[in-house]
Amino acid sequence: MTDRIRQFLETRRPEGPCLVVDLDVVRQNYQAFANCLPETRVFYAVKANPAPQILSLLAEMGSCFDTASVAEIEMALAAGATPDRISYGNTIKKERDIARAWGMGVTMFAFDSIEELEKIARSAPGSRVYCRILFDCEGAEWPLSRKFGCAPEMAVDLMEQARRLGLKPYGISFHVGSQQRDVTTYDRALSIVGSIFRTLSERGIELSMVNMGGGFPTRYLRDIPAVQAYGDAIETALRRHFGNNLPETIIEPGRGMVGNAGVLQSEVILISRKSTTEGELRWVYLDIGKFGGLAETMDEAIRYPIRTPHDGDSTEPCILAGPTCDSADVLYEKTPYPLPVSLEIGDKVLFEATGAYTTTYSAVAFNGFAPLQSFYI
Amino acid sequence: MTDRIRQFLETRRPEGPCLVVDLDVVRQNYQAFANCLPETRVFYAVKANPAPQILSLLAEMGSCFDTASVAEIEMALAAGATPDRISYGNTIKKERDIARAWGMGVTMFAFDSIEELEKIARSAPGSRVYCRILFDCEGAEWPLSRKFGCAPEMAVDLMEQARRLGLKPYGISFHVGSQQRDVTTYDRALSIVGSIFRTLSERGIELSMVNMGGGFPTRYLRDIPAVQAYGDAIETALRRHFGNNLPETIIEPGRGMVGNAGVLQSEVILISRKSTTEGELRWVYLDIGKFGGLAETMDEAIRYPIRTPHDGDSTEPCILAGPTCDSADVLYEKTPYPLPVSLEIGDKVLFEATGAYTTTYSAVAFNGFAPLQSFYI
Repeated sequence: MTDRIRQFLETRRPEGPCLVVDLDVVRQNYQAFANCLPETRVFYAVKANPAPQILSLLAEMGSCFDTASVAEIEMALAAGATPDRISYGNTIKKERDIARAWGMGVTMFAFDSIEELEKIARSAPGSRVYCRILFDCEGAEWPLSRKFGCAPEMAVDLMEQARRLGLKPYGISFHVGSQQRDVTTYDRALSIVGSIFRTLSERGIELSMVNMGGGFPTRYLRDIPAVQAYGDAIETALRRHFGNNLPETIIEPGRGMVGNAGVLQSEVILISRKSTTEGELRWVYLDIGKFGGLAETMDEAIRYPIRTPHDGDSTEPCILAGPTCDSADVLYEKTPYPLPVSLEIGDKVLFEATGAYTTTYSAVAFNGFAPLQSFYI
Repeated sequence: MTDRIRQFLETRRPEGPCLVVDLDVVRQNYQAFANCLPETRVFYAVKANPAPQILSLLAEMGSCFDTASVAEIEMALAAGATPDRISYGNTIKKERDIARAWGMGVTMFAFDSIEELEKIARSAPGSRVYCRILFDCEGAEWPLSRKFGCAPEMAVDLMEQARRLGLKPYGISFHVGSQQRDVTTYDRALSIVGSIFRTLSERGIELSMVNMGGGFPTRYLRDIPAVQAYGDAIETALRRHFGNNLPETIIEPGRGMVGNAGVLQSEVILISRKSTTEGELRWVYLDIGKFGGLAETMDEAIRYPIRTPHDGDSTEPCILAGPTCDSADVLYEKTPYPLPVSLEIGDKVLFEATGAYTTTYSAVAFNGFAPLQSFYI
């Protein structure tokens, strides 16, 4: 929560649930990444929050952009980024979308399979390609599935095929898992990448780049390491596994860039109990839920800090739910959330650290409720 | 799949993932409910699919509407329903939304707490209210959480309070759980409701209506009972628990009304393997996933029938995933889906029984992908 957001909410008094993002915080976050990883280029993961105001600010500050689709490439270009600052980072692309990206001047593509490589070779000939490897994400609050990446041995083979197909074998990418708080993970990952570089070098292919992905955390209820700790750990690991022959490096912060810049305001619609049985918890129903933007409460994965007008009063555990007629639209039930006993219907509650993965996750109109509105100040 | 949908897809060849709904099937479904439950009024659950074409057709056929929000009330009115055919069935309503509904002529409201009752008494004075009770949904493929409803003893108490507040204690509602295939469930539920009716009658309150909610299934991969089986079970249970003094009855089919009317067309973007290890499954990536409309694959809850151009060829188990750069965007992984070994990149695959809970669940623009487009023919 920042003074600017507080003031905006007090003076503008927006109707309905909304997200307010303080662009000053985004600016500070970009600066922190740039300062703590001075040799690494920042590719902002557009999917975290593609608001034009955020993209323009970052483009102006010199950021590059990691994009998931042609629409995101267009947004990055519209924000002022040149095509050489854009990576098409999705390993799953329609061939006609590869062609469209290439037509717009994009020449850096992710892949993790021979099938994708063949599409890129046909529709974006001569491009730089980087291969995403599978990496187990121990220590991450949201370990990733095996959806992206291939086995490291396969990456070596694919890079040789890339050359054969007339592409530029450019680098290797990995992802340490979302909300990764263990900075030593980078050492494990870079050790694997270093060995891929060496194997390929023996076969006459000199890779240039390591894409260390995203996973940089936002502070929710638990403390997180400072960006400097990531910078130091990465620097040390790079030295250990690449010696003096350091590769170009890239990071793709999304949540780490915008998460803590946003505050989501919601209204308490109803507070009730299901029976008069002793120990029956209170249910607190809000005007936003899983389908209005808080999709990351799925499996109660992310537990947002919540502010109420009664903070400081004594609390009791509550079950927190959204406004739709959908039984799955419950935010916190397995682990109830402590909220003030004095909380009332009509009160505004604030979800902090909601700048990432909220506006775009929101459903078009589930139950007739409008998508999450947002303000960038 | 119907001939009309097949023909539409062949001649119109829409670009990008899309849903096609055959309104003839919706018409047949409405007729089946009307025929098999001749004494019961049908309130279509608008949230399942609020397309104006569906609402207009049902309004014309005489259907009533169960709505979750003011926006859905407005849609039902726009489709030609009069306010007396609209129920505001969400137990979680902002008081100003209750006032708006009342202003539009709606006089039937759901509730499950004293707090909600007080809002209705203030903002929709004199309205008919029905109390939703908690009911355990054994036998349902998607048992509901405890989000909606109160204990039956509490319902009795609340109905007395409703009268004191100047409201009309109108009825009791329950929900047997989504995709309920055990028709005997209605007997258990109606037994509880019958006893609430009798207790209140002893206290001088004569309730009029039983709202038996939704939960009527759509056929996915497993067979489901015919609508007639539900009609018979409900009829028998009503006789057993209410004798000759039958209450008005209501049902709220959503999935059961439109689920089997829709077919979703998607394209195979990529088919690949993660390594050359023996037994490594194929990953099949489509241009639609959890965030583009197939949200009900959450926890692999609903397993849609999938048609491909190669049906009949030998199959192998595949992991099925969506197109976004989100590791959670995987449809079937715990239980892989058997798909033809001859399936190729670029093939169109059809998800059957996707008329309900797809278009409105889709995200506004996650990863830059447009929301699910839909056609009503």
